[in-house]
Amino acid sequence: MHITVQRDKLSNAVSHVSKAVSSRTTIPILTGIKMKADEEGLTLTASDSDVSIEVLIPKEEAGEWGVTVHQPGSIVLTSRIFSEIVRKLPNSEIHIQVDDRLVTQIRSGQAEFTINGMDAAEFPQLPQLEEDKIFSVPSDLLKSMIRQTVFAVSTSEMRPILTGLMWSLDGGQLKFVSTDSHRLASRTAAVECADELSFTNVVVPGKSCNELVKILDEDQNPVDIVVSDNQILVKSKHILFYSRLLEGTYPDTARIIPQSSKTEITVSTKEFLQSIERASLLSREGKSNVVRLVTLPDGSVEITSNAPEIGKVTEIVMPKAMQGEELKISFNAKYMIDALRSIDSSEIKACFTGPMSPFVLRPTDHEWTLHLILPVRTY
Amino acid sequence: MHITVQRDKLSNAVSHVSKAVSSRTTIPILTGIKMKADEEGLTLTASDSDVSIEVLIPKEEAGEWGVTVHQPGSIVLTSRIFSEIVRKLPNSEIHIQVDDRLVTQIRSGQAEFTINGMDAAEFPQLPQLEEDKIFSVPSDLLKSMIRQTVFAVSTSEMRPILTGLMWSLDGGQLKFVSTDSHRLASRTAAVECADELSFTNVVVPGKSCNELVKILDEDQNPVDIVVSDNQILVKSKHILFYSRLLEGTYPDTARIIPQSSKTEITVSTKEFLQSIERASLLSREGKSNVVRLVTLPDGSVEITSNAPEIGKVTEIVMPKAMQGEELKISFNAKYMIDALRSIDSSEIKACFTGPMSPFVLRPTDHEWTLHLILPVRTY
Repeated sequence: MHITVQRDKLSNAVSHVSKAVSSRTTIPILTGIKMKADEEGLTLTASDSDVSIEVLIPKEEAGEWGVTVHQPGSIVLTSRIFSEIVRKLPNSEIHIQVDDRLVTQIRSGQAEFTINGMDAAEFPQLPQLEEDKIFSVPSDLLKSMIRQTVFAVSTSEMRPILTGLMWSLDGGQLKFVSTDSHRLASRTAAVECADELSFTNVVVPGKSCNELVKILDEDQNPVDIVVSDNQILVKSKHILFYSRLLEGTYPDTARIIPQSSKTEITVSTKEFLQSIERASLLSREGKSNVVRLVTLPDGSVEITSNAPEIGKVTEIVMPKAMQGEELKISFNAKYMIDALRSIDSSEIKACFTGPMSPFVLRPTDHEWTLHLILPVRTY
Repeated sequence: MHITVQRDKLSNAVSHVSKAVSSRTTIPILTGIKMKADEEGLTLTASDSDVSIEVLIPKEEAGEWGVTVHQPGSIVLTSRIFSEIVRKLPNSEIHIQVDDRLVTQIRSGQAEFTINGMDAAEFPQLPQLEEDKIFSVPSDLLKSMIRQTVFAVSTSEMRPILTGLMWSLDGGQLKFVSTDSHRLASRTAAVECADELSFTNVVVPGKSCNELVKILDEDQNPVDIVVSDNQILVKSKHILFYSRLLEGTYPDTARIIPQSSKTEITVSTKEFLQSIERASLLSREGKSNVVRLVTLPDGSVEITSNAPEIGKVTEIVMPKAMQGEELKISFNAKYMIDALRSIDSSEIKACFTGPMSPFVLRPTDHEWTLHLILPVRTY
């Protein structure tokens, strides 16, 4: 292999694929980034057991030079060292040349690195997916759908299936659901797909979703998504992002969402969030991080919390509207804060069905988002 | 005590003094911030065994309201909780009221915190310093003098005196010296002081210097410095910064600085730094982080480094000027990088007296800065 490549494009590609390099793998070849130069350009690939990422640097794109392939071929270089070298090279042109013994020369300006490479033939093959289940989402929408739900996936390996984000598609509506069995987040959006396309129980590991968010652009360009039995593939321009799916059956969450309510409170999202955040300054000193919400006869809502030995805090929030029965309820402040922070609408409605039942938060301006939180028993 | 105070001023003051709060102290009162309200305004104080910081919020300053004292008094509140409460309060006015049992009410808008305070009488008194040794430095100059030397203080407790920055003053010149016995940094500047004022062996802990840098403003306002036998006091507007001094005698570093040289190389600071940084990508993979510098017959300088099993790197640097004997020398890349990064001149001259002797780096445009590095024996 012998190429000349544009530094910034290489640096970008390396920083994308290196997100799939595991630092703790015991398989030496997986600490590396595979480079393959052919008639298309230069393709970089990295993989750990969960995620694989592939980025193509085309020879030329929109009149801009990317790479010149003097001699096709491939090599695997240790990710950590290679990333740092590329970032620090002095010139915008980088020459990379591999000899028969896999010794790789990287030259730029007056700097010359000679690095021992690994055999690309040993690098695992990426899966070939059947592209029959395919649909398309704008990049920024996919990003925000993940952000608004992934925080609620479980971090406990007790029920591994809950460490993933459940994707389903039906009637042109893509839905993400996450729950750690104490709270639930759900986000729906209309997407472009074949009318008859539908799937459910596609559970993408939370960690993969977090990596995907970092790679996706903040623009409205469409991203193609291919779903198979045990893999998902996200295609964004020159990037391919593969993740394995979690095995098992995701619980049926639809039936735990209450359909009626006894008390409804409409509040400013920001004001409510800030009150809970202040209350949580003391509640999180204890173990349970519990704050208490009480409706007062004058139409206001009191939020309190106390930490033994330190002190207590009382907040008064004036709702935009309140109706139904009076209410005293306690809940984990962190769950409430996570949910409120993820909501981008200025106003929410909280619907309660009593102090022992799960309650629901929804934006008042659309129906795409829902958060459910289980209360804490303190009485 | 009962006061109404401007939130941003309180928040600023708290963030300054909290730098002196030790999170790991076993003395409960030292986890707190002392507040004292009197005719001057509100004074905040915090202290650990090394550093004490005091900040005054005047009642009014330049026509801007700071604090209203309804009833003088004092209290100590746990720093961590108090800092977070102040930062998150909703209104720009904060009411603080302490009752007989030290219970402190903090009110702002609809938020009300009730916190258990500690008795201010138990808080240690700050030292009273004789102000006979006093001089004055612009704030930004003091900041940069510390930054350009403190990186070379020792982090090892083997010789505790070397963990400090040695301040001395003679003939109106303030000098900072640091060394960890492998390298040395020195920075001198002219300061305003009484003609006859001189001192030496004032060794300020490196940690204190780092905290001081964070507190000093990046402007040319004068900072007054008072030196006593075992304390130093830095006065900047409404801030008093006390640090204890290290006990012991700082080594005489003047005599280890070579007065002649056999090889002199003048290079661009930035170009040289970047070459060493690239070389160090491989050298730091080994234990010793050694790079090698060799003068070539064509007037260029070759910098090389290699890491067993990974590879090697060669850099060619074209000096602005080179004279004297040819040279092969090895040194720790980190020491060279630290020194070059701290130099704000665009060009440096490196003076060598052979492969086994310490060498010196100086900016070419002034004499205020000097770096000395001991080579590594590799031949």
